[in-house]
Amino acid sequence: MAKITRYNPSPILSRVVEYHGFVFVSGVTAKDRSKDIKGQTKEVLDQIDAALELAGTDKTRLLEATIWLKDIKQRDAMNEVWIAWLGSKDNLPARACVQAEMGAPDVLVEIKLSACK
Amino acid sequence: MAKITRYNPSPILSRVVEYHGFVFVSGVTAKDRSKDIKGQTKEVLDQIDAALELAGTDKTRLLEATIWLKDIKQRDAMNEVWIAWLGSKDNLPARACVQAEMGAPDVLVEIKLSACK
Amino acid sequence: MAKITRYNPSPILSRVVEYHGFVFVSGVTAKDRSKDIKGQTKEVLDQIDAALELAGTDKTRLLEATIWLKDIKQRDAMNEVWIAWLGSKDNLPARACVQAEMGAPDVLVEIKLSACK
Repeated sequence: MAKITRYNPSPILSRVVEYHGFVFVSGVTAKDRSKDIKGQTKEVLDQIDAALELAGTDKTRLLEATIWLKDIKQRDAMNEVWIAWLGSKDNLPARACVQAEMGAPDVLVEIKLSACK
Repeated sequence: MAKITRYNPSPILSRVVEYHGFVFVSGVTAKDRSKDIKGQTKEVLDQIDAALELAGTDKTRLLEATIWLKDIKQRDAMNEVWIAWLGSKDNLPARACVQAEMGAPDVLVEIKLSACK
Repeated sequence: MAKITRYNPSPILSRVVEYHGFVFVSGVTAKDRSKDIKGQTKEVLDQIDAALELAGTDKTRLLEATIWLKDIKQRDAMNEVWIAWLGSKDNLPARACVQAEMGAPDVLVEIKLSACK
């Protein structure tokens, strides 16, 4: 039975779970929610960088992602920050992006993804 | 080509799919939808226990989960039941929780997750 | 470090990502959005067939899927096309289906899934 490693537990979730070379990152939202969609996306992606690093991997090893937006009409603005973050089409995960209300009314974007080592 | 094992097929989905030590559980909703959010969450988690057992694993081996709530303001109530069920922070999966309308208007919560053996 | 293979990159995502025998397919929507729910579902599933083929696998090897519908009341109509496509209960993935607004107002269905080789 291969070991599961759990990083940065909160009361309800582990920020990162690693198993058999796979790395699962919890849905991340911005802490500073006074920011607009681009600012929140940037902060989310910074947090994801840190989360991936906990498990010894990085954004060049992404497998798939789900992105929720409070307002789907903000997708282009979010994508601008997303594309800049990924840096290269060699890094692009499989992805879906849909609209949803999230944990608080001022959360504009949440990203949950998986990667590998 | 490693074997895929599918458990408890309905006309549209398998309740559980197992492959290469990974266990994928379909989105579970409560059968008794007269229950409130805590009651429905409890029933969903009971069903998930049974689903995981089909594949010879249990809630100590969760990897990631997505939780949909009809009303995101019921998150704290759902989390109370979730935390009690998990029992230990050693069991916490990666997770996201967002709002969505589900299969019927009285479905208050649906949980889809993956685990390993 | 096992190789990740990415197929059909757009500016924001890879249509398919393959790693360690796992195949992750991006959320697929219909290109012809004048179609009704059955027509869009059929087109989405045709695109998924093509996506799976890129990675040398097919719909008999599905693991799990998430389906978003613009109107959850169209679930039965979508399921009719879904069941016909899958063809056999031996092919049924784990699945969840919830309502969401997607990339454009006339997108009626989006399906994101994973499979194995």
